[in-house]
Amino acid sequence: MIPSRHIALLLVLTGAMSTLMGQDHPSLILTQKGAGAIKQQLGKLPLLDQSIRQLQAEVDREMGRGIQVPVPKDLAGGYSHEQHKRNFFTLQKAGALYQITGEVRYAEFTRDVLRAYAQLFPQVDRHPATRSYARGKFFWQCLNDANWMVYISQAYDCIYDWLDPKEREKLNREFFLPYADFLSVETPQFFNRIHNHSTWGNAAVGMIGLVMDDEELVQRALYGSGHQVPADRVQDNDGGLIQLPGQAKAGFLAQIDEAFSPNGYYTEGPYYQRYAMYPFLVFAQALQNKRPSLKIFDYRQGVLLEAVHALLNQANSAGEFFPFNDAQKGMSFLSRELVAAVNIAYHFGEQDPSLLSIVEKQGKVPLDDTGLSTASALAAGKATPFHRQSMELTDGAKGTEGGIGILRSPNTDTDLCVVMKYSKHGMGHGHFDKLSISMYHDEAEVYQDYGSARWVNIEQKDGGGYLKENTTWAKQTIAHNTVIVDQKSQFEGNVRQADLHHSSPYVFDVSDKAAQVMSAKEDSAYPGVALHRTIALIESDHFENPVVLDLFRVTADDTHESYDLPYYFHGEVMKTNFLIEQSPGFESLATDHGYQHLGVEATGVPKDDNVMLNWFYKNRFYTLTTVASGTDQLIFGRVGKSDPLFNLRRDPVFIQRVKDKQDVIFVSTTECHGKYSPVTEIASNAYGQVKEIKILKNNDQYSIVQVEVKTGESMVFALSNNNSLATTQHKVQVGKEEIAWSGPFTLIHHKLIN
Amino acid sequence: MIPSRHIALLLVLTGAMSTLMGQDHPSLILTQKGAGAIKQQLGKLPLLDQSIRQLQAEVDREMGRGIQVPVPKDLAGGYSHEQHKRNFFTLQKAGALYQITGEVRYAEFTRDVLRAYAQLFPQVDRHPATRSYARGKFFWQCLNDANWMVYISQAYDCIYDWLDPKEREKLNREFFLPYADFLSVETPQFFNRIHNHSTWGNAAVGMIGLVMDDEELVQRALYGSGHQVPADRVQDNDGGLIQLPGQAKAGFLAQIDEAFSPNGYYTEGPYYQRYAMYPFLVFAQALQNKRPSLKIFDYRQGVLLEAVHALLNQANSAGEFFPFNDAQKGMSFLSRELVAAVNIAYHFGEQDPSLLSIVEKQGKVPLDDTGLSTASALAAGKATPFHRQSMELTDGAKGTEGGIGILRSPNTDTDLCVVMKYSKHGMGHGHFDKLSISMYHDEAEVYQDYGSARWVNIEQKDGGGYLKENTTWAKQTIAHNTVIVDQKSQFEGNVRQADLHHSSPYVFDVSDKAAQVMSAKEDSAYPGVALHRTIALIESDHFENPVVLDLFRVTADDTHESYDLPYYFHGEVMKTNFLIEQSPGFESLATDHGYQHLGVEATGVPKDDNVMLNWFYKNRFYTLTTVASGTDQLIFGRVGKSDPLFNLRRDPVFIQRVKDKQDVIFVSTTECHGKYSPVTEIASNAYGQVKEIKILKNNDQYSIVQVEVKTGESMVFALSNNNSLATTQHKVQVGKEEIAWSGPFTLIHHKLIN
Repeated sequence: MIPSRHIALLLVLTGAMSTLMGQDHPSLILTQKGAGAIKQQLGKLPLLDQSIRQLQAEVDREMGRGIQVPVPKDLAGGYSHEQHKRNFFTLQKAGALYQITGEVRYAEFTRDVLRAYAQLFPQVDRHPATRSYARGKFFWQCLNDANWMVYISQAYDCIYDWLDPKEREKLNREFFLPYADFLSVETPQFFNRIHNHSTWGNAAVGMIGLVMDDEELVQRALYGSGHQVPADRVQDNDGGLIQLPGQAKAGFLAQIDEAFSPNGYYTEGPYYQRYAMYPFLVFAQALQNKRPSLKIFDYRQGVLLEAVHALLNQANSAGEFFPFNDAQKGMSFLSRELVAAVNIAYHFGEQDPSLLSIVEKQGKVPLDDTGLSTASALAAGKATPFHRQSMELTDGAKGTEGGIGILRSPNTDTDLCVVMKYSKHGMGHGHFDKLSISMYHDEAEVYQDYGSARWVNIEQKDGGGYLKENTTWAKQTIAHNTVIVDQKSQFEGNVRQADLHHSSPYVFDVSDKAAQVMSAKEDSAYPGVALHRTIALIESDHFENPVVLDLFRVTADDTHESYDLPYYFHGEVMKTNFLIEQSPGFESLATDHGYQHLGVEATGVPKDDNVMLNWFYKNRFYTLTTVASGTDQLIFGRVGKSDPLFNLRRDPVFIQRVKDKQDVIFVSTTECHGKYSPVTEIASNAYGQVKEIKILKNNDQYSIVQVEVKTGESMVFALSNNNSLATTQHKVQVGKEEIAWSGPFTLIHHKLIN
Repeated sequence: MIPSRHIALLLVLTGAMSTLMGQDHPSLILTQKGAGAIKQQLGKLPLLDQSIRQLQAEVDREMGRGIQVPVPKDLAGGYSHEQHKRNFFTLQKAGALYQITGEVRYAEFTRDVLRAYAQLFPQVDRHPATRSYARGKFFWQCLNDANWMVYISQAYDCIYDWLDPKEREKLNREFFLPYADFLSVETPQFFNRIHNHSTWGNAAVGMIGLVMDDEELVQRALYGSGHQVPADRVQDNDGGLIQLPGQAKAGFLAQIDEAFSPNGYYTEGPYYQRYAMYPFLVFAQALQNKRPSLKIFDYRQGVLLEAVHALLNQANSAGEFFPFNDAQKGMSFLSRELVAAVNIAYHFGEQDPSLLSIVEKQGKVPLDDTGLSTASALAAGKATPFHRQSMELTDGAKGTEGGIGILRSPNTDTDLCVVMKYSKHGMGHGHFDKLSISMYHDEAEVYQDYGSARWVNIEQKDGGGYLKENTTWAKQTIAHNTVIVDQKSQFEGNVRQADLHHSSPYVFDVSDKAAQVMSAKEDSAYPGVALHRTIALIESDHFENPVVLDLFRVTADDTHESYDLPYYFHGEVMKTNFLIEQSPGFESLATDHGYQHLGVEATGVPKDDNVMLNWFYKNRFYTLTTVASGTDQLIFGRVGKSDPLFNLRRDPVFIQRVKDKQDVIFVSTTECHGKYSPVTEIASNAYGQVKEIKILKNNDQYSIVQVEVKTGESMVFALSNNNSLATTQHKVQVGKEEIAWSGPFTLIHHKLIN
């Protein structure tokens, strides 16, 4: 790596020299050229005009509230926090508006607010709230201060040439430079991590450095500050490590090296990827503008733009990101970060016309070259639909540390989607959820991932930060749709242990749209227990929508008290094929590992070899059919025990508990079918089509199951458990029949074996 | 009444004679003239063209399924039931399409299906399922058979002149006439009630009579069959009386006389009114077409069209009807019944242009004169917005038996709405919910009415009929937002007792938009206990949205163990000003009167004189502030105990329980405020503005309360408890101040008394 760094450095220095003199601002995000082009297009590009109008309305309203730069005091949700946040958003917009409209009042307002900050800065020490591992200046954590600087750099760049040079010099010297030092050299535990916090820190310092043409800051941003992390700062407040084992590098380029897998997966998951993407992309955009020779968008085979693509695909049909790991639900491609990201991906990437349909839904564009590109292309009618795809995203910098699999229905009318997580733990924001699935039917969560226990920025809920139930519930294995052994979380709930391991991808094959298959194994989560889950999304005439076949194989060195497989379904139970008993109480299932938060609402015992649960959600019907035995316990639970503050949602779960077994295979189908309208009051296709699932074979070599449907038709799915080579020929005797195939699995339609 | 009936009869006979000969069909709903006019307008009126296309697509699809007239067997949701239902909807459309497109295949299909029915008819007795008090022929209850005939009459009318006269004569004589007799003279307990079932029966017999020009059937429809109800049929299966006390009349005109209050309120509530409106209006339309001299739309000062107006106002901002009494949520003006009703109201009424905006939302029009009218007016750009209004709707045929009050925010941007029910019980579908309120913020339920415990037409849930929890839970007082005395339902849960009484309207004054007030009293629900509830919807600078002030005064002859006031809020608890304790169990609150279905999730004790509950729902915040004392009990409950079949939704409730008191006044404010976006993650205005509520006076004469807001401002609301005259002058000493006003109440802004 060292030689390439030297080259980069050289290029950077050369670039820097060319910008040392003259009126060359703005040049960071909005450029002089871009501003000129936008002015020329005013009134011609509807989305651009609309964006300008929106910004003007917002900024004018904020300017009407007057300059408010309060003494830092509150946590997220409180006045001082929220006001400082408003300020950086407003100033970023005001700066751009000054450039585009030429109205001096926007420049004056920006200057006046910056003056107030510059005055406040030397008067305050670190923020009085002590909960962060890296307390900020205007905010309780440096992270928010870095947000501030990333946005404010853009505003400052827009008025830089307009400012009185003396005042500018003073601001640079007495405010921005010491503030950048504060965020970097004075807080190395924040600046030198491989973590989204540090990405913000790197971008903040780098961007203000680019504005001020301070090459030392730019270098620091790209390569880290080199300062050692204090010995008493080994962990952040989410339990994440400050210094990763073997971490040799720091700074923005190291973040790019480490943060993404080769196909753009971000180990913390899409919610944090969305958050992290903004500093990655906006600093990259700034580098592309001011240090074009660095070719930042080509860095690591263009992984930054690949990451935008990966992120857009980790979402339901409304564009809402899969909420695995710590994630608040509802975050989507409508976020400000994705507005920037998608426009950057279009402009600096290959002008993929399907991105334009997302820009259209976002309803606004950035006021810079990228927004000009997309607004022009949209006005020229170039948009095409964006279709999310089945895909596997590998994890780890080299793509060798597990991943996630996404299977999607081939029919684009209905987006039926199953996600399986077999990635790395995801660091401090990771959950103990290996081999967990979640499932979507368009926007509806068929099987939910709980997400985090947090109301971001809602002051009532502990200042908007992570609640203690995030640890005691949301991260625990029982909060996920995966097998829990002996009612303990994977890795005994130990983050450091979990961070050392990743699951192993076994099969990901979506070449046959009639049977898309993903399969992965996990051997470290429970010592002496091997987990192997396989999901097939099967399209067949028997079913209105593709059906999900789920094989979850557990093999152990010894007998275990319980294997629990929860299904966090949503909606109202319509029918079961077993008797449900409701106890008068509603006791917790157990006292720790998250079970203390789950109350038993009702229980049942399988009457047949298959258990059927039929439910209703958002005007559609769903049916789970699962192989069971009379010794299994069926549990209807509900979240919300040990939670007097109502920090958790009272969501339902159905758990199949297999007791006192050594090896077991959970086999189920999930069908999405029918519909109902409360206006017409007509129900159609209210029952599932699966009549019976049988396990024909289950041993170390093969798992073979048969699904019989009500019409009498049947299909057989066979999986090789220990050989995933595509070329291997398999031949297996099942009862009186022999089935043969090549590759790790086969699906035989119209087959009834016994 | 007798003389006017004679005149009506004479007019009817005159009309009948003029139609005895010639090619005069269709003339029932779609008329020859109307069909001609529609044909001329094809391609010119977008909504009409769209409606025709929709109908063609639907009918062609159904015709593609072939003729299916199965032997009756199933309950609602089952195949035979649903197929017979599909048939009548399809044929009604096919008939109209034959007239408009001239395509004979539609007429042939209609004829062929009718032939199949005529063949089946003599072969089957009453439906094999025995649960109805009036078993039908093709359906398990006559009600559905009457539905069939109301729709099929329209189809038959459209092909009447096209049919071979011999076949027509045979159908008339051997099928339709005996079928009409079956529904009327053979089932008097169904035909001669004052009830929505009978309205359908009357319309069915009357409409087929009009098609066949069978005057005897028309007379029977208008005036009842005169046959006594069998002595063993005193009650229907919902517990409603077949023969109302003092009922002297029967038939369609008697239904109009009795069903509606003078301003169009229907005692069973809007869900059933929607259902009942269709036979009322479609038979009226048929009478207007074939017996215009009857002037049916002027009958009782035009109450039929007034009822459409009343119905449209009993809805939230999405047009979904208030779900009080037995009602499934989500039913709205998009229903087929309302499509007919709104078009009829426009065409036969005063062409109110605001109805056109509803027609537009419905997205289709009937293929008859009414649809032609609205589609033409819409194409001419005549639509204006439909604004729902604050209004009181009286109950009872004379409007003297209580009513409901609806207060709505004057600002039309946000529809904030409180409904109070102080009507009659509402017969078999009534709930024990006197003085209950429900509250809406646009489409969000702030305080819900549970509605019925039923999934209409969803077979899994007991055939789609009423579940037993409808009686044990949904009808009980504890399922509603009103005071429950000693944990017993009003009238001890006895329908007959409840049917004898109605609450008393006390004040309804919406003349001052800054303080709209409704108030009502109930003295019969609990012997020896007088209930008096007053709701003020107050618009003030202190609040982002109008605030709801709720005074619920209870005076009793004796001490009572408990007064419970539940608030069925939706969403997530954000914050309280009292300590919540969660017991390990989740016991039912009590063993009967619905309490057996309510589990205790957590409890608390007021710490201050005011209890504050702040919650989050659909991205907005809500705050309840209520006066309390340290001896009160605060209960967080959840529905779903004693319910192993999951027939009930697991909805939350907050209950204030006042213990061992004789008289009490519950005083609260409910604020809707702020918003949150999971995309921007910005929360605004997350807390309520009310600082403290004080009761300044509460005696038989006056209740005076003061609401202080956080800015220090205050307002005082004074109510005269025993004199609602608008002219009376009041003067009351409160502490050191005297307040004076005229009329039943006053709201004094900017007033702080102590």
